[in-house]
Amino acid sequence: MNYKIVRYVLGWIILVFGLLMIPSIIVALIYREGWQGIYPFLIPMLISVASGFLLTRKRPDNKDFYMREGFVVVALAWLLISLLGALPFIISGFIPALADAFFEAASGFTTTGSSVLGQPELLPNSQLFWRSFTHLIGGMGILVFVLAVMPSIESDNAFVMKAEVPGPIFGKLQAKVRNTARVLYLMYFGLTFVLIVLLVLGGMPIFDSILHAFGAAGTGGFGTKSNSVAFYDSFYLYYVLAFGMLIFAGNFSLYYALFSRKFKAVFRSEELRWYLSIISLAVMLIMLNTREVYDNFFVQLRDVFFTVTSIISTTGFTVTDHNAWPLFSHIILLGLMFVGGMAGSTAGGLKVSRIVIYVKSSIAELRSSLNPNRRMAVTFEGKTMSPQLKNQVGNYLSIYILVFVVLLLLVSLNAPNFLTAFSAVAATFNNIGPGFDLVGPTGNFGGMSVLSKVTLSIGMIMGRLEIIPIMVLFSPRTWKRT
Amino acid sequence: MNYKIVRYVLGWIILVFGLLMIPSIIVALIYREGWQGIYPFLIPMLISVASGFLLTRKRPDNKDFYMREGFVVVALAWLLISLLGALPFIISGFIPALADAFFEAASGFTTTGSSVLGQPELLPNSQLFWRSFTHLIGGMGILVFVLAVMPSIESDNAFVMKAEVPGPIFGKLQAKVRNTARVLYLMYFGLTFVLIVLLVLGGMPIFDSILHAFGAAGTGGFGTKSNSVAFYDSFYLYYVLAFGMLIFAGNFSLYYALFSRKFKAVFRSEELRWYLSIISLAVMLIMLNTREVYDNFFVQLRDVFFTVTSIISTTGFTVTDHNAWPLFSHIILLGLMFVGGMAGSTAGGLKVSRIVIYVKSSIAELRSSLNPNRRMAVTFEGKTMSPQLKNQVGNYLSIYILVFVVLLLLVSLNAPNFLTAFSAVAATFNNIGPGFDLVGPTGNFGGMSVLSKVTLSIGMIMGRLEIIPIMVLFSPRTWKRT
Repeated sequence: MNYKIVRYVLGWIILVFGLLMIPSIIVALIYREGWQGIYPFLIPMLISVASGFLLTRKRPDNKDFYMREGFVVVALAWLLISLLGALPFIISGFIPALADAFFEAASGFTTTGSSVLGQPELLPNSQLFWRSFTHLIGGMGILVFVLAVMPSIESDNAFVMKAEVPGPIFGKLQAKVRNTARVLYLMYFGLTFVLIVLLVLGGMPIFDSILHAFGAAGTGGFGTKSNSVAFYDSFYLYYVLAFGMLIFAGNFSLYYALFSRKFKAVFRSEELRWYLSIISLAVMLIMLNTREVYDNFFVQLRDVFFTVTSIISTTGFTVTDHNAWPLFSHIILLGLMFVGGMAGSTAGGLKVSRIVIYVKSSIAELRSSLNPNRRMAVTFEGKTMSPQLKNQVGNYLSIYILVFVVLLLLVSLNAPNFLTAFSAVAATFNNIGPGFDLVGPTGNFGGMSVLSKVTLSIGMIMGRLEIIPIMVLFSPRTWKRT
Repeated sequence: MNYKIVRYVLGWIILVFGLLMIPSIIVALIYREGWQGIYPFLIPMLISVASGFLLTRKRPDNKDFYMREGFVVVALAWLLISLLGALPFIISGFIPALADAFFEAASGFTTTGSSVLGQPELLPNSQLFWRSFTHLIGGMGILVFVLAVMPSIESDNAFVMKAEVPGPIFGKLQAKVRNTARVLYLMYFGLTFVLIVLLVLGGMPIFDSILHAFGAAGTGGFGTKSNSVAFYDSFYLYYVLAFGMLIFAGNFSLYYALFSRKFKAVFRSEELRWYLSIISLAVMLIMLNTREVYDNFFVQLRDVFFTVTSIISTTGFTVTDHNAWPLFSHIILLGLMFVGGMAGSTAGGLKVSRIVIYVKSSIAELRSSLNPNRRMAVTFEGKTMSPQLKNQVGNYLSIYILVFVVLLLLVSLNAPNFLTAFSAVAATFNNIGPGFDLVGPTGNFGGMSVLSKVTLSIGMIMGRLEIIPIMVLFSPRTWKRT
């Protein structure tokens, strides 16, 4: 392990992170919150910038930066940023306890959107802005992480990307990481801007529009009201946000293809077809199941469509208390929590591409059990998967389940019942936001124990980084002298 | 598909099955239950024998019997036997509804032990005997199925067996199927007999001892009292049954090795070490978690040890209402339900060997993510697993989860809450018996809807046959003319 390079890179990250407090200070100035509004951001900003400056003063001679260092930097960066990002909440006194503030910040950066706050209305605008701004930062980080840095590290994502944007485009994307990142950011901010405009046009206040667009862009889900989006009660706003969430949980390389007028790549995308099919099927089934809950078909369709897109996109905005829906609908929503959005998006969960591979492998396995001498090939996005790749995707499921069980065991030590514990882990590990029962749309995570909050915070970061970096960080091997 | 050979083999199975009603008739005679006790068995016996006779009268000319035919015969045999086995309950009027009686019979043959009856005490001895006898038959069927027939079909089980009993012994076992089956039956009945004697020595009535030994042998779990084994309230009996369940959920090829004085094979068994470690860990964790529920350490240890072995062995006898334990203990027990016993036993669940492979593959995956150019090998029982085999074991997990989700969705249509629905599916699909909440130790499955009962019955058979035969049966491809 090259400790010096790890220190150096982390230093730069913290330095830049400190500057990201500036927009919140500007918000405090605009809304004339005075010193009370400014210093909760100024202090952590100074801490970050100063320590970042100190850490980056000496350039390391040894520039070796391997996989191990990469994972450690990524894992430590997310933990550190969640800690530093918690400071404004603590210093302002709005979320005084460390575990709570850490939970809220981790939930923001990982674009989860689970909250310990019952009434966000009580927060001043600068704090509300910071909360939602963490989604935008987290979403950005993930986009680069997943689409630019990871392909060279994790062949799983590289495969998915390769498969989705065929041939030469992919080569270009991977070769010019900086260029790719620029294009991705352009699309990300462009779409966010369009969403803000559409929300303002629908009558949502500008401040709220900006924050909700941040929440949708990062597929985060922090809102500004205790009843989330239900506060605005408008067909137009509900549908704008629903389609917004749908788009931000889509694979950005498809938008890149659209942007480059490679329309065929989009039409041919197998993952996209599955993504839209799963959404349609879920909406239909829940519509049938909630007939008795609703009088009006259009209100029902609106609520169900919004909830389904909110959960599969792992955003977590709510317009209705789905706790009141029947159990069958709960199971469908719980299932969607594990599916998550498309690969190469800001969404969490297992990702649609993995689900497709699991389903296709299962079918191939059943077929080959009738013809044991003939192993069936599994194709995805028109290409045959190698046994190594299938193994890798399969192993991810085992790792995912192992981590899920450990998180569930820790949370169950203090949780009141199975549904609360299970859905709390499902909603945080998959970066959704609200779960069911006590942590459902009308509840929050504030009532959980400190152990549960810390466990779920780590779970959110693990889910966001697809587990492996955090496991590497906590592995004794990583810290062994060689 | 060679329909004629399917008909012919099924005919033989039904014919033999009819004769298995004789012991219950003898019980009815011993306890002087009169005509009322006899005819519920005599009628189905005559139906089975007569139709079996008719079906086997014409020997098919075409003797082609491939995998497809094998799966169809196995799947149809279990469905037919569950239907015929339900007749004594229906005809006697003790379980008049078809869905209930089918559930009870399927639960018996699959050695699940979930019951629709609140008070088995109300049944005459002949009916009680039949209920428990189905466990013995089911366990026998499974032993032959898994250890004699399957190795030539499913390389997964063959691998496990090969790995456990190294070299020549395995060759012998596989080559001489009939001989193997004889040795297995000898051990199975021998151990059952020893268990009966030990229970009688502990003061349990002979009739009850026989039935509980059947329940433990098949890892089934039907008892004779509404409070299951708790009725007998004896340290000795609890421990005898607990160790009995532990042994019957162990790999029978290990006992074969013991029998042939190959003690090294037993000491070297990786699966055995894991099996015992998982049990010890679970007992320790639950002991710590239930400190406040118990006053007396020895009563606590007894109850916890019994419950853990009862669940991991997928038997389902109960001595205490574990609904009253804290949530953490519930999650551990739920986890054990999915683990199940060792491969090559009468137990259900995913099997310890698969769990070991999942855990080891996960660790290898994490390590290889640091050295992407070096794929880590996974060894099991001292041998390196091929990528094909890893894929197969991995795919089983995907299939298992898919089926579980479908069962859960169907059951959730009529279930009162998440824990009841989830644990009902977990307890039946893994062939355990009781679940939690309404289907817990003090409840039963009688209150579930007809749809749920049928779904769970099919689930029990799928779990018992490791899914694939039933999927083949319901696949349109199977029935396509070629």
